[in-house]
Amino acid sequence: MGEFDLIARYFTRPARRAVTGVGDDCALWQPQPGMQLAVSSDMLVEGRHFLSTVSPQRLGHKALAVNLSDLAACGARPLAFTLALSLPRIDPAWLQGFSQGLFMLADAHGCELIGGDTTQGPLNICITVFGEVPPGDALLRSGAQAGDDVYLSGSVGDARLALEVFRGSLKLDTALFEDARLRMEMPDPRVALGVALRGIANACIDVSDGLAGDLGHILKASGVGAVLTTDWVADSAAISPALQSIPMARRLELALAGGDDYELLFTAAPDQAPAVQEAANTCDVSVTCIGRITAGQGLQVLDAQGIPLSRRFVSFDHFSH
Amino acid sequence: MGEFDLIARYFTRPARRAVTGVGDDCALWQPQPGMQLAVSSDMLVEGRHFLSTVSPQRLGHKALAVNLSDLAACGARPLAFTLALSLPRIDPAWLQGFSQGLFMLADAHGCELIGGDTTQGPLNICITVFGEVPPGDALLRSGAQAGDDVYLSGSVGDARLALEVFRGSLKLDTALFEDARLRMEMPDPRVALGVALRGIANACIDVSDGLAGDLGHILKASGVGAVLTTDWVADSAAISPALQSIPMARRLELALAGGDDYELLFTAAPDQAPAVQEAANTCDVSVTCIGRITAGQGLQVLDAQGIPLSRRFVSFDHFSH
Repeated sequence: MGEFDLIARYFTRPARRAVTGVGDDCALWQPQPGMQLAVSSDMLVEGRHFLSTVSPQRLGHKALAVNLSDLAACGARPLAFTLALSLPRIDPAWLQGFSQGLFMLADAHGCELIGGDTTQGPLNICITVFGEVPPGDALLRSGAQAGDDVYLSGSVGDARLALEVFRGSLKLDTALFEDARLRMEMPDPRVALGVALRGIANACIDVSDGLAGDLGHILKASGVGAVLTTDWVADSAAISPALQSIPMARRLELALAGGDDYELLFTAAPDQAPAVQEAANTCDVSVTCIGRITAGQGLQVLDAQGIPLSRRFVSFDHFSH
Repeated sequence: MGEFDLIARYFTRPARRAVTGVGDDCALWQPQPGMQLAVSSDMLVEGRHFLSTVSPQRLGHKALAVNLSDLAACGARPLAFTLALSLPRIDPAWLQGFSQGLFMLADAHGCELIGGDTTQGPLNICITVFGEVPPGDALLRSGAQAGDDVYLSGSVGDARLALEVFRGSLKLDTALFEDARLRMEMPDPRVALGVALRGIANACIDVSDGLAGDLGHILKASGVGAVLTTDWVADSAAISPALQSIPMARRLELALAGGDDYELLFTAAPDQAPAVQEAANTCDVSVTCIGRITAGQGLQVLDAQGIPLSRRFVSFDHFSH
């Protein structure tokens, strides 16, 4: 099987929204009049973004999920994506599973594959995703205001927890491990919540490098500071049963600096609290208030007694871990 | 230097067309009302798309050039691109050169870097490029009509010639080798010609896999056949002095099946011949008529005496070479 057969067999489906789909030099499509386009690109490399133990189905899911999560963070509705794949060899079983996991998530979000590239080389997956958002409605990192509440969707720390079990630095009951592993290998991008938060949230980012580090990006872009509470790490919807089973000091680290969570971290004015809750209910995802934006610079992390924690939670950096 | 510093130092420039540039979760931009978007994605891997001997400047140029060439083939005007980079290590000299070569070509075409990703891993460069074209004006592979002339821009065979010299299967005078090597390492995407051919050409593709193979894509998509002449391989603007120095049998192979040429291969009705020539003159690029589209299926290659050549010119496939 050559490059063209591979594309035809696993990655060609009838074009829907696109005028011309996979197969010409470019994909051509007509954006909705007046809408802004949101574009994001993510590259996944073995050992950095996934382990060799991941199933091809889950990898196909994750490769698109991390990109959809970027659209979610901007409140953009997914439209289409391109896929560039470098493969060491043509493995039909792998391609079958990968494309299945990819298209299942793509279909769930009405996001169409419109083009791409395949080549032989070390395994590498690069997806570029396109979404749309009405002009002025996009959620940005730069909109946080002093006095805003800081919210977190879903729960954090599980992906890193699973990674640490794989690395052997933590042990976990099998059922809890499988839960955490699912979070690591099949993150659920918060697309509906991102769209629902338009006009409600002042700033938003998706948690990919670690909660504290990603909050730092909002603070820097918005020119503000924040106080982050940690009582929610003891017991809240933001901490899974798997993470609950881990001692508090380690749990704090996993929750605040774990990374790979793909939850939404956003800020909203206090009078928006009911609207935030309603958006969360509509989207069937929990939302936890975890802090407040301050006028001063910097991030202060308080323990359950309100005393500043000295540990600095550094974020995940693809060149330093 | 970490990932964020790397992006800030080498790949962040003030946003122009984009509403939000590099640095947020997504790039946001407003397409021109009524225009169609053209999107293409190419992934470059060492040993497949470039040799380890290429300078970072030239590699930066080539990575964008092969994508711009896809836009050219559709007659689309470049707007913006995303860059995803996997690097084995952070090498400031390499990054400096790569970004310089990349931005020099980007600036020449008014094509803005709006986002991307960097990670550590085997060297891999994935660019997704966006262009615009008025609805209905895009050049496609599927528009060729029986009776159309087949044209080729610039010259072909040099990139493969240089590759064969690197491989040791051919020898070349130093000056001629440097010319051929420049064509291999710094292809000049025919963007202006692609735009000028809107409304003139019936079908178009860029020559990346090899002239005969890429013509095959047009024939298949258009449901037609073609007769390809080869007298132009003996002596024409489509054959460089470097290629002229190679014996005819080998030269034919390099010209018809070499690949990596990034020239435009297009068809136009005979009465468009003056318009084709005028477009070529305006864009300061030669255009050579190399055959004719036929109603029958299949591709027939004729030698200089008009006798069919038996050799089948297979195209470049990233999984079979």
